[in-house]
Amino acid sequence: MADKTRSRFSGSRVPSRQRTPNDLPQSELPQEKTAKSYTYENVTGWRQYRVLRPCRGMYHDIRRRLPYYWSDITDAFTYRTIASTIRMYFVNILPALAYTLDMYRKTGEFFGVTEALFSSALAAMVFSLLGAQPLTIVGITGLISLFNYTIYEIIAQYDSSLYPLFMAWTGIWAAIFHWIVAMFNLCDYMRYVTDFSSESFGMYVGIIYMIKGVEELVNELTVEGPVSGYLSCIIAILYFASVYSLEKMGQSTLWKPWFRGILADYAYVFATLFWVGFSHIPGRLQDAHVSQLPVTKAFYPTQPRDWLLDFWNLPVKWIFVAIPFGFLVMLLFYYDHNVSSITAQARQFPLKKPGGFHWDFFLLGCTTFIAAILGLPLPNGLVPQAPVHTDSLTVYETKLEIIPTAEGEGTEIRRPVVEAVAVVEQRVSHFLMGLALIGTMTGPLLAMLHTMPSALFGGVFFVVGWGSIESNAITQKLVFLMSEDRFIQRDEPLLSIPRRKIWLFIGLQVLGVAATVAVSQTIAAIGFPVLIILLIPLRTHLIPKWFTLRELEVMDDFTCTNEQVLASLGGAPKLPEHTRAQDWGLERRRSEQRFGLQRQRAGNLRR
Amino acid sequence: MADKTRSRFSGSRVPSRQRTPNDLPQSELPQEKTAKSYTYENVTGWRQYRVLRPCRGMYHDIRRRLPYYWSDITDAFTYRTIASTIRMYFVNILPALAYTLDMYRKTGEFFGVTEALFSSALAAMVFSLLGAQPLTIVGITGLISLFNYTIYEIIAQYDSSLYPLFMAWTGIWAAIFHWIVAMFNLCDYMRYVTDFSSESFGMYVGIIYMIKGVEELVNELTVEGPVSGYLSCIIAILYFASVYSLEKMGQSTLWKPWFRGILADYAYVFATLFWVGFSHIPGRLQDAHVSQLPVTKAFYPTQPRDWLLDFWNLPVKWIFVAIPFGFLVMLLFYYDHNVSSITAQARQFPLKKPGGFHWDFFLLGCTTFIAAILGLPLPNGLVPQAPVHTDSLTVYETKLEIIPTAEGEGTEIRRPVVEAVAVVEQRVSHFLMGLALIGTMTGPLLAMLHTMPSALFGGVFFVVGWGSIESNAITQKLVFLMSEDRFIQRDEPLLSIPRRKIWLFIGLQVLGVAATVAVSQTIAAIGFPVLIILLIPLRTHLIPKWFTLRELEVMDDFTCTNEQVLASLGGAPKLPEHTRAQDWGLERRRSEQRFGLQRQRAGNLRR
Repeated sequence: MADKTRSRFSGSRVPSRQRTPNDLPQSELPQEKTAKSYTYENVTGWRQYRVLRPCRGMYHDIRRRLPYYWSDITDAFTYRTIASTIRMYFVNILPALAYTLDMYRKTGEFFGVTEALFSSALAAMVFSLLGAQPLTIVGITGLISLFNYTIYEIIAQYDSSLYPLFMAWTGIWAAIFHWIVAMFNLCDYMRYVTDFSSESFGMYVGIIYMIKGVEELVNELTVEGPVSGYLSCIIAILYFASVYSLEKMGQSTLWKPWFRGILADYAYVFATLFWVGFSHIPGRLQDAHVSQLPVTKAFYPTQPRDWLLDFWNLPVKWIFVAIPFGFLVMLLFYYDHNVSSITAQARQFPLKKPGGFHWDFFLLGCTTFIAAILGLPLPNGLVPQAPVHTDSLTVYETKLEIIPTAEGEGTEIRRPVVEAVAVVEQRVSHFLMGLALIGTMTGPLLAMLHTMPSALFGGVFFVVGWGSIESNAITQKLVFLMSEDRFIQRDEPLLSIPRRKIWLFIGLQVLGVAATVAVSQTIAAIGFPVLIILLIPLRTHLIPKWFTLRELEVMDDFTCTNEQVLASLGGAPKLPEHTRAQDWGLERRRSEQRFGLQRQRAGNLRR
Repeated sequence: MADKTRSRFSGSRVPSRQRTPNDLPQSELPQEKTAKSYTYENVTGWRQYRVLRPCRGMYHDIRRRLPYYWSDITDAFTYRTIASTIRMYFVNILPALAYTLDMYRKTGEFFGVTEALFSSALAAMVFSLLGAQPLTIVGITGLISLFNYTIYEIIAQYDSSLYPLFMAWTGIWAAIFHWIVAMFNLCDYMRYVTDFSSESFGMYVGIIYMIKGVEELVNELTVEGPVSGYLSCIIAILYFASVYSLEKMGQSTLWKPWFRGILADYAYVFATLFWVGFSHIPGRLQDAHVSQLPVTKAFYPTQPRDWLLDFWNLPVKWIFVAIPFGFLVMLLFYYDHNVSSITAQARQFPLKKPGGFHWDFFLLGCTTFIAAILGLPLPNGLVPQAPVHTDSLTVYETKLEIIPTAEGEGTEIRRPVVEAVAVVEQRVSHFLMGLALIGTMTGPLLAMLHTMPSALFGGVFFVVGWGSIESNAITQKLVFLMSEDRFIQRDEPLLSIPRRKIWLFIGLQVLGVAATVAVSQTIAAIGFPVLIILLIPLRTHLIPKWFTLRELEVMDDFTCTNEQVLASLGGAPKLPEHTRAQDWGLERRRSEQRFGLQRQRAGNLRR
């Protein structure tokens, strides 16, 4: 996408990134050194147990990543950084506000817009300045909103006034568990995550988004009455259609690359400005009084309280009750945040800088602690948005592939193939986005937020949710199974395995998704991280008994395959079926080879 | 589409159609004989002037077509006929009712649902039983509705009570002009119609449909208030989305051919049943009271009057005033009806039976006369629906084209190419559809019609209108001009002519469309047929001065190129630029060769 333009702007960057390691003496190449040094292979005795060597992962993360810090700033002076900042501001804040709206209504109005903005800004500042993986966007997710209001439902059965302090303690315990996990190098186990579970998770997130979108509109109908309810439905549907078509056009071969680039980069911006304006057209539309985002006084908590909660006043009994809840939060973040980091540094991006999972998880413990004692919703890695950030920083080129044919069509077929040429790896866009969030907390901008109709958030849910469902490999396998056989290209790897095995594979995924979605609708919702995490051992221990190695190689792949990233996780994983990495993910590989990369739309978990 | 299924059902038909001519002695092959005999070439003296040889065209039409009458019935015993009857019933009645709704409100409630159904049924009976071209579906068009209410606006300035009788006389004069045109063989000039004007007309019709759809919804908002207004918008948008996606899926390579065939055949049926049901779900949806189709007592005129109008009581002055109006109606039908017949027998359909324009235009005069004195809206050929009828009778096969490549992708590329194998040419589906229309006029079915929300018709307008715009060659040339050059296949014929010439060509078309659309919105609307007709001499006399022959060969083509059909029009046309037919329409030809035929969706004027 936007080939010429982006190549031009990126000119200043590519050399500088390559310079960094080369300027150092060959022997001291930081990534080579730590890539070798952080591992538990070929060691014997107590040294092979990672739990016995606390803080080793964090130490290596810092050592590996610190040399790149200066280049994280100097590399940022390109147009991509600006486009990325604007896009991410919208992609981050819109769903966050949407979830906050939901949380606000369902937690006795404890969490409001101010809290959400504060939390997002805090996370953006901490991770853009101190994070080892500044590409991972951290903020308010739908899952923490689900968590928060489910806990409210539980607490309200006893005494809803306990809720603020109980949440504070849940967060404090969660922070402690985070620090423990980070110290004892337990993030290493994330390398065992394969597409089997991460696709299921993506599908789950997509479905939850869609459900939330419908709930948002139903709420509008119930609370505000049919006029604004139906108008809200129209706005939500047309907002979805606008963003979707703009992004599709951005992926087409219409117009020039720079113009397509603008469409793809600013689809949310254009659509949001237009439909907010639309809902305020004087006359019939304005008279419908669609409900708008409720905001409160700038910089003050939604409830009349101090920012710092008096968490020390919670009865001791409840402090202990909060322990399992804290553990579940940690479990959720363990999967959610780390998968965000993995997808933000996924295989399709040509990344050069290393990752750092242990250090980031430690940092996440810190933000969890701060957010907890200030009564903010807990921020963590945003699964659908994290890869969008990297995407917005990627220099794409739509290359022309000419396939010579033996006969017909002028003896050639022309096909656009999108290639990711380079990524502007830096921490400035994340930081600027954080500044913009702080700016949004001020009075005037808060007033502007108040003009946004809630219906818009219904549309946001649909865009993000559908993006996650449409591009999901479960959907794509399903389309394969439903397609008429004779039109499928003969080199499609899925053809080489029995159809019932594909059914079985996606059947297991769908089962996992269905169970998790079902649980999310009940008061047992807080248990859903357990279900998600259970998919990992299911994949490593049970699945290999039901499928041959070849079948798994075609259908599955490690979600984390980038060597730079694996260095932080102790190297490539060892599975019962020992094979080479290049034998895996055949289906995906072929699709990328034929059609190139798909741009990440908000909501695409992968590909 | 639906290859196997359709081939199976069509087994009984293909031989029978081929048998008909072969059963006759070789010398008496009717089509060969009249194809030669009806021409004005190679004759001298007064005989070369078609006006001096009255009824010659009609005589040859009957002589050419009559031998096929029996096969028109026997050929009909296939599944295609059933599918076609159901599909055409919906595709005919839905827009007709939609326009009637519009007319009803704008003609002082003179034309109502009963009149529309009566008129459609009358036309269906006459043309299915007596027509030379039973594939041409005849009914209520948007243009006659535009005509009727514009005349009402004019008459109402003097005395709106004159309106019924004035309309009767307009129709009577129109009928007389029809008979004159048919007798003096003037339909022959239709062979000069090229895609230049027929595409412009298709675009014009599409835009008028879209405008009507919006007007329908605005009316609902204004008259019924915001609740039912906004709900109507939702129903219209989602109805559009339903039909559109069902038809797209029917054109995909998902599932088996028979299942895709069902989706494509019954997209309107499914969507209509669903959304009518939706609007009646008890509770909030039903409480919105979206307005429904107003119907009156079965078999009685909408106004308290006898069916036969006392047209002899109109003051003589007004009878003469009606002459130019009648002439304009004839002009409209001359273009509209004949283009319907041409597109119903367009080049992409492998038709074997001949056409008969003169006879059909004479018949149209008769139905015009009957409709006029009974106070019905005048029926004529339905431009967007006529090719849909032929499409619904066509046996499509989605063939697999394998393009061997010199390298990569398993050394071949697989591509689905849709081919029209045969057409079930018969008059039974048209007749059955007419019977269904008569059935719909009875009490119980009329009550069922009353359950249909007006909003649905907004959706119908969008589907039909967008279909006509999306598939229009103006749109496709525009997409070509906007596409990035390097991704265009090198054998694309449009590449061989200067871009500014393409801009000029579609610029002229757009100008014609814009002028006609603009006029349609004013009281001068009744003059729009003149504008449309003017496009034909513009094409034959002015355009060749601005474009080279080669450019026109690529971009334009005669709309009527089927030899069987041309026989009725006195053979292939002679243009200033004498060339062979196979040199024309290069762009279309290549597209068909590469991707096969597109199925006709309601609203596709061609391709």
